[in-house]
Amino acid sequence: MIQKLAIIGVGLIGGSMAQALREEGVVQEIVGCGRGKPNLQKAVELGVIDHFTHDVSAAVQGADFVVLAVPLSAMRKTFEAMLDHLAEDVVVTDVGSVKGCVIRDAEQVFGKVPDFFVPGHPIAGTERSGVDAAFPELFHNRRVILTPIENTAQPALERVEQVWQQCGAETTRMEITHHDEVLAATSHLPHMLAYALVDSLARMKENDEIFRYAAGGFRDFTRIASSNPTMWRDICLANKEALGVMLKRFADELHDLAKILETEDSDGLLEIFNRAKEARDSYIDGIK
Amino acid sequence: MIQKLAIIGVGLIGGSMAQALREEGVVQEIVGCGRGKPNLQKAVELGVIDHFTHDVSAAVQGADFVVLAVPLSAMRKTFEAMLDHLAEDVVVTDVGSVKGCVIRDAEQVFGKVPDFFVPGHPIAGTERSGVDAAFPELFHNRRVILTPIENTAQPALERVEQVWQQCGAETTRMEITHHDEVLAATSHLPHMLAYALVDSLARMKENDEIFRYAAGGFRDFTRIASSNPTMWRDICLANKEALGVMLKRFADELHDLAKILETEDSDGLLEIFNRAKEARDSYIDGIK
Repeated sequence: MIQKLAIIGVGLIGGSMAQALREEGVVQEIVGCGRGKPNLQKAVELGVIDHFTHDVSAAVQGADFVVLAVPLSAMRKTFEAMLDHLAEDVVVTDVGSVKGCVIRDAEQVFGKVPDFFVPGHPIAGTERSGVDAAFPELFHNRRVILTPIENTAQPALERVEQVWQQCGAETTRMEITHHDEVLAATSHLPHMLAYALVDSLARMKENDEIFRYAAGGFRDFTRIASSNPTMWRDICLANKEALGVMLKRFADELHDLAKILETEDSDGLLEIFNRAKEARDSYIDGIK
Repeated sequence: MIQKLAIIGVGLIGGSMAQALREEGVVQEIVGCGRGKPNLQKAVELGVIDHFTHDVSAAVQGADFVVLAVPLSAMRKTFEAMLDHLAEDVVVTDVGSVKGCVIRDAEQVFGKVPDFFVPGHPIAGTERSGVDAAFPELFHNRRVILTPIENTAQPALERVEQVWQQCGAETTRMEITHHDEVLAATSHLPHMLAYALVDSLARMKENDEIFRYAAGGFRDFTRIASSNPTMWRDICLANKEALGVMLKRFADELHDLAKILETEDSDGLLEIFNRAKEARDSYIDGIK
């Protein structure tokens, strides 16, 4: 049982986590913390949190479980605000989409990464944001990657795993750099491509007409371009090394494709399309 | 009323069109034509067509409305097979995703593009194919672009417009080259990108793990990479000029993005993401 759960950042992820744990009956009190008053008031109205504060140090006071669900760019000052205010037996975790930068922030603020801090990343979300978008089933059968370091306390790690399992998720452990590379490939690059495509079409002078003739496939393909731009700006910058590598690899692939097209290499093109369809179909079969 | 409708290529598009017109009660007899016997037998079982033949010249015999729903690479030999077998009062249309190449094929086979031929392209489809995937509502509220040329007979054009409206679609007319450019941007490029992304991930050595950690956004983003590879190979090659231009434009955009990332140009990145989100959200609002 969590006595006092502090959710710092009550948006889609933080809000859904609060709802899931409440529904599971494993939490006594939930305090929400954030900057926007309307969103926090809404969270209280919706029963997502019991009460709220704008002050991180007040929120974490006496909390035995703290979740940092703030944008990556706010992680460092959130650590600073909680320094010296955390309870003795606290466990802190975060939900940031990039792990290297969060570890660095924690290290710089605390001197070394605290043993009670377990870096985490739920592979879940939608293109919507804010507490309005939250729902308790968000993490059902989703994976949560934890990236503990040498210094991480085993009981803290197990506690965070337990809490995520109570949210309906499956936990897994991964090395930090590896996490950031895998996510660059499967999440950060696709977002970059979707934003870039829609932007390049939007900048064409007949863009009204262009969008008018976009078919159903386009709608799905570009769904992630409706995600929160500030959040994704932060994520992409925070993972710029791994993402930069993927971006260049992909640009190379596009050049190969352009060449294949130009030379009408029919078999080469079919080989790529076939390999992609096969990989995508078996991935979908795997998550069914 | 269509007396005899010949559907050459009874797949997702041809099959759905037959079903829609049947449901609307505006067709007497439907003959299907194709190469694969099991698919055609299935089409008869499902009531999509009344009977079938593998012979194009037999299928079009006495037909007053002919729909070419074959792959782009089969268009030319289909024109050849129907030459000299078409009825006096026939109207022929096609559903190819690229129009320049279809016009060229018709021109080469018939000497000049026949006045009874109305090139068309329904902006509808799913990632599935074959008559199993067909459903009569596929074209409801979808746009169908017709690209008549100077020589096209006005009554034939109006007949094709009427038939598409009976399928529940909205028709529009467009110049051929313009059609191929607009579709390169909104459909062919996104398919190319989705295939290329999944392929580049599939080729990474830890690809099993990569796909395991792909989130929901990835599933939608890559849906179109599950489309029929042969059909899309044909489409991309058939529209290689316009698609090549788009591909290069996009590669340039990616290079800009890589630079923005490298120099940590936070405002520049946010500007792109914001513009994309705004364009995508208003596009979605527009089609609601």
